[in-house]
Amino acid sequence: MTTDSAQAVTRRTVRAYHEARFRGDVTTAAAQIGEGFRFRSPFIASDNPTGHLDGLDGLLGIVTGVELISELYGETEATLVYNVHTAPTVGITQHTAEHFQLRNGRITSITLVFDSAPWQAIMAAAGPVHEEAVPMA
Amino acid sequence: MTTDSAQAVTRRTVRAYHEARFRGDVTTAAAQIGEGFRFRSPFIASDNPTGHLDGLDGLLGIVTGVELISELYGETEATLVYNVHTAPTVGITQHTAEHFQLRNGRITSITLVFDSAPWQAIMAAAGPVHEEAVPMA
Repeated sequence: MTTDSAQAVTRRTVRAYHEARFRGDVTTAAAQIGEGFRFRSPFIASDNPTGHLDGLDGLLGIVTGVELISELYGETEATLVYNVHTAPTVGITQHTAEHFQLRNGRITSITLVFDSAPWQAIMAAAGPVHEEAVPMA
Repeated sequence: MTTDSAQAVTRRTVRAYHEARFRGDVTTAAAQIGEGFRFRSPFIASDNPTGHLDGLDGLLGIVTGVELISELYGETEATLVYNVHTAPTVGITQHTAEHFQLRNGRITSITLVFDSAPWQAIMAAAGPVHEEAVPMA
């Protein structure tokens, strides 16, 4: 496998995951996940292939658009940078970076980086919530 | 200029900036900045070439190490993913992503993404501070 084709595989897998996630297609998103998967974000640490997708419907219910700013692919990793726009009642534009590591064309690690402070402020204003009600994985 | 050499220029400029920043060398970091520069992080929005480096000494005084996890380079952009480790008295491991855009081999835009919530908690505990005392650009 040449360097170019490994990057092409990375790109195909990561884009399939990203697009499936934001259209709420958990099955297709999960199909891109490989063995030993680990997920980490400001709100969630999970080693279950779909654990971090629980509550996805709640998230998508307030997302009005995803604006992809950057996608860079290596042979076994990728980083996406995008803005998540939310409904006016939420009013957050979430600047997001997502780092993927891959093995054999499947995603083995995702680190999602964003500023959780605006969400914390909303949750504090809303009062105590159950953990599973946190909208933003 | 071929694709490879454009990526090599991007890599050289971004690495020079990153390494200079974390050794406190503002002059070398600023030398990588181009015209029309814009910086944005959870704490700072600046269009001054060195405005976002004000207070760098305060930051470096509490940083114990920078662990580079990923570096991906395109012709006119790059993303770094790294963990910033801080002194035990601070106790934050800051998962960080940094997106650079470049023109003519100089950095024209930096978006720094990290979770500001742990810093907000520390600042809230410390009481009111002046904006320039915020340690983390």
